[in-house]
Amino acid sequence: VLGSGWGAVALLKNIDPTLYDVSVVSPRNFFLNTPLLPGVTVGTVEARSLIEPVRALLPGKPGDASFYEAAAIAVDPNARIVRCKDESEVTAANPEFTVPYDTLVVAVGAPPNTFGTPGVREHAKFLKEVDDAIDVRRKLADLFETASLPGVPEEEQREMLSVLVVGGGPTGVEFAAELHDFLREDVPRLYPALRDKISITVVQSADHILNTYDERISKYAEEKFARDGIRILTNRRVTNVAATHASVMCKKTKATEKIPFGVCVWSTGLGTTPLVSSIIAAAGQPRRRAVSVDKYLQVRGISPRGSAYALGDCADVKSKAASGGELLDKADELFKRADVDENGAVDKGEFVNILKTLEESYPQIATLTKGAADGALHDILSRFDDDGDGSLDRREFRRAMAEADSRLASHPATAQVANQQGEYLARELNARGRARRNGRVTAEYPAPTKPFEYVHLGSFATLGGERAALDTRGSPLPLDFVSRGAGTMVLWYGVYFSNCVSWRNKAMVVLDWTKKGVWGRDSSRV
Amino acid sequence: VLGSGWGAVALLKNIDPTLYDVSVVSPRNFFLNTPLLPGVTVGTVEARSLIEPVRALLPGKPGDASFYEAAAIAVDPNARIVRCKDESEVTAANPEFTVPYDTLVVAVGAPPNTFGTPGVREHAKFLKEVDDAIDVRRKLADLFETASLPGVPEEEQREMLSVLVVGGGPTGVEFAAELHDFLREDVPRLYPALRDKISITVVQSADHILNTYDERISKYAEEKFARDGIRILTNRRVTNVAATHASVMCKKTKATEKIPFGVCVWSTGLGTTPLVSSIIAAAGQPRRRAVSVDKYLQVRGISPRGSAYALGDCADVKSKAASGGELLDKADELFKRADVDENGAVDKGEFVNILKTLEESYPQIATLTKGAADGALHDILSRFDDDGDGSLDRREFRRAMAEADSRLASHPATAQVANQQGEYLARELNARGRARRNGRVTAEYPAPTKPFEYVHLGSFATLGGERAALDTRGSPLPLDFVSRGAGTMVLWYGVYFSNCVSWRNKAMVVLDWTKKGVWGRDSSRV
Ligand SMILES: Cc1cc2nc3c(=O)[nH]c(=O)nc-3n(C[C@H](O)[C@H](O)[C@H](O)COP(=O)(O)OP(=O)(O)OC[C@H]3O[C@@H](n4cnc5c(N)ncnc54)[C@H](O)[C@@H]3O)c2cc1C
Ligand SMILES: Cc1cc2nc3c(=O)[nH]c(=O)nc-3n(C[C@H](O)[C@H](O)[C@H](O)COP(=O)(O)OP(=O)(O)OC[C@H]3O[C@@H](n4cnc5c(N)ncnc54)[C@H](O)[C@@H]3O)c2cc1C
Repeated sequence: VLGSGWGAVALLKNIDPTLYDVSVVSPRNFFLNTPLLPGVTVGTVEARSLIEPVRALLPGKPGDASFYEAAAIAVDPNARIVRCKDESEVTAANPEFTVPYDTLVVAVGAPPNTFGTPGVREHAKFLKEVDDAIDVRRKLADLFETASLPGVPEEEQREMLSVLVVGGGPTGVEFAAELHDFLREDVPRLYPALRDKISITVVQSADHILNTYDERISKYAEEKFARDGIRILTNRRVTNVAATHASVMCKKTKATEKIPFGVCVWSTGLGTTPLVSSIIAAAGQPRRRAVSVDKYLQVRGISPRGSAYALGDCADVKSKAASGGELLDKADELFKRADVDENGAVDKGEFVNILKTLEESYPQIATLTKGAADGALHDILSRFDDDGDGSLDRREFRRAMAEADSRLASHPATAQVANQQGEYLARELNARGRARRNGRVTAEYPAPTKPFEYVHLGSFATLGGERAALDTRGSPLPLDFVSRGAGTMVLWYGVYFSNCVSWRNKAMVVLDWTKKGVWGRDSSRV
Repeated sequence: VLGSGWGAVALLKNIDPTLYDVSVVSPRNFFLNTPLLPGVTVGTVEARSLIEPVRALLPGKPGDASFYEAAAIAVDPNARIVRCKDESEVTAANPEFTVPYDTLVVAVGAPPNTFGTPGVREHAKFLKEVDDAIDVRRKLADLFETASLPGVPEEEQREMLSVLVVGGGPTGVEFAAELHDFLREDVPRLYPALRDKISITVVQSADHILNTYDERISKYAEEKFARDGIRILTNRRVTNVAATHASVMCKKTKATEKIPFGVCVWSTGLGTTPLVSSIIAAAGQPRRRAVSVDKYLQVRGISPRGSAYALGDCADVKSKAASGGELLDKADELFKRADVDENGAVDKGEFVNILKTLEESYPQIATLTKGAADGALHDILSRFDDDGDGSLDRREFRRAMAEADSRLASHPATAQVANQQGEYLARELNARGRARRNGRVTAEYPAPTKPFEYVHLGSFATLGGERAALDTRGSPLPLDFVSRGAGTMVLWYGVYFSNCVSWRNKAMVVLDWTKKGVWGRDSSRV
């Protein structure tokens, strides 16, 4: 198993160690509960509360499974070995070694993507690993302390206390929200003189922040941020990052302005690790961001099938048959097929019928209907019925098709997906192992039993001030599919709580939340 | 107030903010509970649990007192200003500024002393600041992980897993003990294969470890370490530190051997900060490690008296009258005076008499007799009565005098002393402030009311495995003056618990201890 993140750990927690001899290779000897990471930047939770030593998560008794703290640097699928290298500060005289495998699981995640923007690595901070968050926290503390020194001109104070967030996705938004909570709840107590000199700006390249969520959520978030005084610049791209300012270009007018910052947090998208590129090459796949896998998560192009899997952020489960836009391309034709009474609108009955017809050839339809009983299919229609007339016109129908496409086109790069994939693969591998042990099959790599199916439980985003938004479109939860506000925050606490990988983690996170409630956040520069 | 450590914080917690306009300057924006620091190296307690933001400790309401995160770099006692410089990563365009004062309190502590040994700063780790301990923890995790990689030769594993502790004082001993606890309690679970490849060596320049404690404690500690397999090399000095080994010279034979290490922790004594050197120079004092102060903690040589104080590790409260070795110099003469019946031995009655006679002119005698009723003076004699014959021969008497000298000669550089000095000075300054406010005095710097008196509550050292030692010689506690073993550990928990500066700290430390008890220590490299 390569990696110790969401995907790898879900696998490790479910694999049967009596069937497999498990070795884990990762440069990070702990699991990181990423969804809570933005809170570390201001001390809502402590870094240590979000991590769990991998060794404590290994299956079986101590010594049954092995963990190697190193980076995998290349895979040889023919010889079935992984070349590894210890890239940490302390290394043995020979930092390289190889690990042989029968079955390989690649769960190495994806690094942040700078899109080649100059200056990002030098001057901006990412928000991906635990050290990134600690770094941002230290930097913020340092900025607040420096701005508090005697004789610093107000102009300089304001520049230092400008926080620039590049990327209006959930991570950027959650960081901005955490920061705003800190300003509101703790700054008056800790730095009373700085209160009015702080500004937060979010730069987003799309039309709206949280643009992968339901529009209502985007809007709710934008309104809340506006009330909180968080500036949102949409349709802008950062073209350059210098030590204390970024150049931001308006995508329409092409005009560029300079935005000064004390700290710039970069959170725009995912890139590719060198290892993933090399696996893509070894498998003879076309160059892309992620490793292409089939619906059983088997790496395409590597034989024997079943010897190599990939999952999580480094894997792309888009099936060949359902490449993006397929349904949308045919939307008008499908609309005609659906509109049996030719009244120019698809009513409830017609909609249910066409979904059922399409379901078999277009797996993406399942992401719309998933888990919905016949009665509930009505609800699906109403999701797209913007004018509320009980049926879908051509435009509304197109939106339904587009959404089904977009759902399948790429499973989102989330912990939710990685976690389900890890659990799925453990079940598959356990079944295979048992079948071989019982002598029911003799092939080294028997055929998989059933494909991976993603159950979308909804997308959360915290917005600060005990407000959150939840988008459960396509989820089987008995909930309104778009929920916003304070009640949602309670749900959020619940979900993140149950997300923590161990009881230790759970207890620590709850204690952190309690601590914050009782004593406020800690401003120490550590 | 310069500093945010034990001395400064004790002052801040007790000063009356209605009488003074308090400004605090320190490069560290938090207080650090040093006695628990060795535990951070292995995760017995978390770094954050030992710190408390200074801003939360400032007297009065938010905004009443100021904190500036910067280093004081020079004091001008005539102009009464402190020059400061922000030495952190983020600085304003002009990182220097000055702070005027009426009354200055210097509590800047003392840095580790390398005694000029080459290689220490490059290759060894200190155990002084919180980042040092975090550093050691990361390094240890890295070493254990690297030693666990496939194909590392056993020889190399053993070298990596050698821990070298330079200095057999309480910090070095406590670190060795914490590490041994980690090896015993957590390594079997986390790194079962490495169990027998780990070694700990303590190098001490004196005859015994813990040589400032009672001999029985030294002995108890040495025996416990021997049982635990911790190697103690006494009468040796480290003459050079390289990347993976240190050269150790036997003080007697002058023979040098090389000791390989994976990590070397250096904890041998205290040095002088540049600021302290410059204050010593400005006050016209002879060059020494610490600022010389009188019994009111006023810096000698700075006028007006009462405008500058120093306390804690950076201050030397040795009074001129009692400079070191005074009693020892006269020991033979005093022995003659004491031995009234001229039988060549000082019996109990004679000893009590001479102590009473000397008490007035030699304040150091009080550190022996302190708080002891007449009956208890017998106990004092027995402390030095090595052959147990009920009286002191010439050699035994000398030892008593030497000890009295050494006690006063230098208040030990401990948190206990710094804390009491801070509390004392706050009381003094409050009295002065009140007297001036009531118009009872008009002088800007009225004379101090009473001198500082140190109440020694005993010296603790933890030895691992829930064992501790306590030396309460000279303490007014109703306790056996030397206590060792498991019961003492309970006391230790109690003392350290009450040492935590805030309820937040207390709660966090107790939670850490609980966490460790339930889940073991966390091996994550963070
Ligand atoms: C700040 C933040 C907030 C997020 N919030 C949410 C959220 O609220 N909800 C949600 O569903 N998702 C969220 N995500 C996304 C989620 O974290 C990722 O989708 C998820 O971690 C992907 O899991 P993974 O196992 O593929 O990769 P990761 O969890 O990133 O793990 C990758 C692992 O591979 C290791 N690795 C890297 N290179 C190598 C190598 N060469 N060899 C061996 N190992 C290697 C890494 O050290 C790591 O252990 C968030 C992400 C971030 C950064
Ligand atoms: C690992 C360890 C364990 C210990 N265990 C014990 C124990 O069990 N019992 C005990 O009694 N003692 C113990 N001690 C000793 C104790 O910590 C010190 O004696 C005590 O901290 C001294 O207090 P202080 O206020 O003088 O200095 P410190 O607490 O060291 O504080 C000095 C402060 O001054 C600041 N400073 C430094 N330079 C400047 C500058 N130029 N300008 C402004 N500020 C500056 C520092 O940032 C710091 O805030 C231990 C020490 C260590 C390192």
